[in-house]
Amino acid sequence: MGTRIGVGLLGLGTVGCGVAGILQTPEGRHPLVAELELVRVAIRDLQRPRPIALPESVLTNDPQAVVDDPAVQVVVEVMGGIEPARTLIMRAIAAGKAVVTANKAVIARHGEEIAAAAAAAGVYVLIEAAVGGGIPIIEPLKQSLGGNQIERVTGIINGTTNYILSRMAQEGVAYDVVLKEAQDLGYAEADPAADVEGLDAADKIAILSGLAFGGPIDRASIPTQGINNLQSRDVEYAKQLGYAVKLLAVAERLNSDVRTSPSLPLSVRVQPTLIPLEHPLAGVNDVNNAILVEGDPIGRVMFYGPGAGAGPTASAVVADILNIAGIRQLGEVNGNVDPLLAASSWRSCHLVESSDIRHRNYVRFNVVDSPGVIGLIGSCFGERGVSIQSIIQVDASEAGAEIVVITHEINQGQMQDALTAIASMPEIKRLAAHLSCL
Amino acid sequence: MGTRIGVGLLGLGTVGCGVAGILQTPEGRHPLVAELELVRVAIRDLQRPRPIALPESVLTNDPQAVVDDPAVQVVVEVMGGIEPARTLIMRAIAAGKAVVTANKAVIARHGEEIAAAAAAAGVYVLIEAAVGGGIPIIEPLKQSLGGNQIERVTGIINGTTNYILSRMAQEGVAYDVVLKEAQDLGYAEADPAADVEGLDAADKIAILSGLAFGGPIDRASIPTQGINNLQSRDVEYAKQLGYAVKLLAVAERLNSDVRTSPSLPLSVRVQPTLIPLEHPLAGVNDVNNAILVEGDPIGRVMFYGPGAGAGPTASAVVADILNIAGIRQLGEVNGNVDPLLAASSWRSCHLVESSDIRHRNYVRFNVVDSPGVIGLIGSCFGERGVSIQSIIQVDASEAGAEIVVITHEINQGQMQDALTAIASMPEIKRLAAHLSCL
Repeated sequence: MGTRIGVGLLGLGTVGCGVAGILQTPEGRHPLVAELELVRVAIRDLQRPRPIALPESVLTNDPQAVVDDPAVQVVVEVMGGIEPARTLIMRAIAAGKAVVTANKAVIARHGEEIAAAAAAAGVYVLIEAAVGGGIPIIEPLKQSLGGNQIERVTGIINGTTNYILSRMAQEGVAYDVVLKEAQDLGYAEADPAADVEGLDAADKIAILSGLAFGGPIDRASIPTQGINNLQSRDVEYAKQLGYAVKLLAVAERLNSDVRTSPSLPLSVRVQPTLIPLEHPLAGVNDVNNAILVEGDPIGRVMFYGPGAGAGPTASAVVADILNIAGIRQLGEVNGNVDPLLAASSWRSCHLVESSDIRHRNYVRFNVVDSPGVIGLIGSCFGERGVSIQSIIQVDASEAGAEIVVITHEINQGQMQDALTAIASMPEIKRLAAHLSCL
Repeated sequence: MGTRIGVGLLGLGTVGCGVAGILQTPEGRHPLVAELELVRVAIRDLQRPRPIALPESVLTNDPQAVVDDPAVQVVVEVMGGIEPARTLIMRAIAAGKAVVTANKAVIARHGEEIAAAAAAAGVYVLIEAAVGGGIPIIEPLKQSLGGNQIERVTGIINGTTNYILSRMAQEGVAYDVVLKEAQDLGYAEADPAADVEGLDAADKIAILSGLAFGGPIDRASIPTQGINNLQSRDVEYAKQLGYAVKLLAVAERLNSDVRTSPSLPLSVRVQPTLIPLEHPLAGVNDVNNAILVEGDPIGRVMFYGPGAGAGPTASAVVADILNIAGIRQLGEVNGNVDPLLAASSWRSCHLVESSDIRHRNYVRFNVVDSPGVIGLIGSCFGERGVSIQSIIQVDASEAGAEIVVITHEINQGQMQDALTAIASMPEIKRLAAHLSCL
């Protein structure tokens, strides 16, 4: 070793402070950490007190000065937001500098542009912290699982919603009440839309899908259902039936023959989902995240840990800086890159229509209280080819009569047809809930 | 890309066939797989039918010919056993070739010699498949977690014993009966000693400890207790008290101040352990493995998946070959190595005395059936500074009276003193079980 690496930090919020803290205390960490030198840090306000001591000479309120500093070899973007983050990342790439970012929003929306620029410049843009907080998931998908044909990635990748769902299940409390508590505890933002509507999870599954299947998809086309309309009643019924309810982000390959397809058809989606209690994802509670990867020949592997927080996220950012520093120890490589670490696209992928996706379903109907309704619903599903696993009249006196149905796996176009037909029956007051089911 | 890599395979058992199968069907895997060329394969008997089709010209029954073949750049050792595996690995290193091995026994026993030779020659020896089957754990410890001060690694890393313990817990069956079934199913060897006595787990935790803490330990000195003397009665009592029993391999740092210690004191051990049912390791059943890593600032991350089997193990072997192939795309590097991937030692470590280790305990006594015994045991523990969490007289008529105690965390020297004193009391027939407890 001995080749010191100049690190420039864009942003000194909680994650930025976490990164600086690691670099300032290399003892007991990998010895390569001691070779990382924090040479320039961009902060918004030079006057504001900072939770971490840094020499004045290192600080600037001009982020471009960090990117342009010749002593900075790795630009670490932890400021968040789309702009100016995107422009600064592109500027760093153009200057031939490696980039590390925790910014899932920028990568999910501008990943193709950034990857193309990085490939042209022969630099790395590493994003371990963008998904799953401290959990190593980007690097395993890029490197450790490269020998596999990946079939499916299923993730609990939003800590806020998982905290809310865990509390709803454990205490039977309503969504609104738990959301308020989560906000008071700092687990949810004052404006929780990006989390509770599933948008953050959609950003992240777009990134994981690109790495797992080798090609980008259109982020804006990912069907996304959040937990903001979820009733505690459904969490309770699910529990009674032996299921946990989680906000799952799924990316799966629909065509099993990878040789004949010029573009790989994928289903990528975010939706609240019933998970059998014995499934490894069912026990992932509170702000933890977990990502289950299924492939051939590996079978199923799961990565579990803290999905957010300054410490875990800083750990992931430093992992990326170390990877770049490790490669740099090899000396001059004439602009060549390690294709595993660079992770450029190698295949064309596309999303299929939502109606072509197949999965199990949980539905709840409000119905008139008459003896034949279960039979009517069952027959209507049967006539439209929807096979039912269980159909139960639940005891909910104040809400009126309710019927809960769990189907076997079915094409969602067929499922919608059946639901439309059932909803038109006079005995059915309304379709009160429709969730996915593993 | 475009730099083809010559792969030589030592052994064509289930794992070797799995590796060859991946290399023969690159479609749908990372495109770098297509650059791997299987140029030479050593098998024991050229006449025996093989489950995989390979050109005759590739096959040899002389493993040295594979190592020496100038077209072989990466030597993949999947023959198992100590010799000739060790000699062949050393020969490959001496010839300047990268090595990939799934051989935990060789690495646990000869890791230092192999690492020193690899460092001198500037080559990589990669071992992802040696621990946890297909689960990426070696690479995350070497790369993704490098920014952390690792505090503890806790693993369920032997699939055979985990299968046996899962069955014992689920069905209340005796150890001998389940072992026989596991042998019939091929989950346990005809001679099960290496698995059920904890030796295989000790090999693996020695490897994980070296990576997590940066220095080797003496494999032969790891205190190792298997499951071969475990009573189904204790699994049952544990379940009633809210615990699962698992064979845990633990490596933990005992000194929190990493700056003042010239050699890091570690506790590394293998022992059957009670795990609270809400702990993420408690739900790891059957032949699955899981490794929980705790560090600062990441907190806790867990890696879960199939701990053995041809497919998962082949996935890990190919991951290592890909890592070497990825680095090779950088071109000539003048014998430099990426220190993260090479993972040489960077710190001195040593094992502390077993009596200095602290953990909770589960003990069971056979006692005479008289009313004061619980008090006597409680007092004796108290006098020796052992704090008790619960003490219960269990209803076991045919076995006589039994008392089960769970202690708080306690130095094991003190614990042994207390147990010796209690065993000498006339009311105590014998100490029937002593397990660790998380």
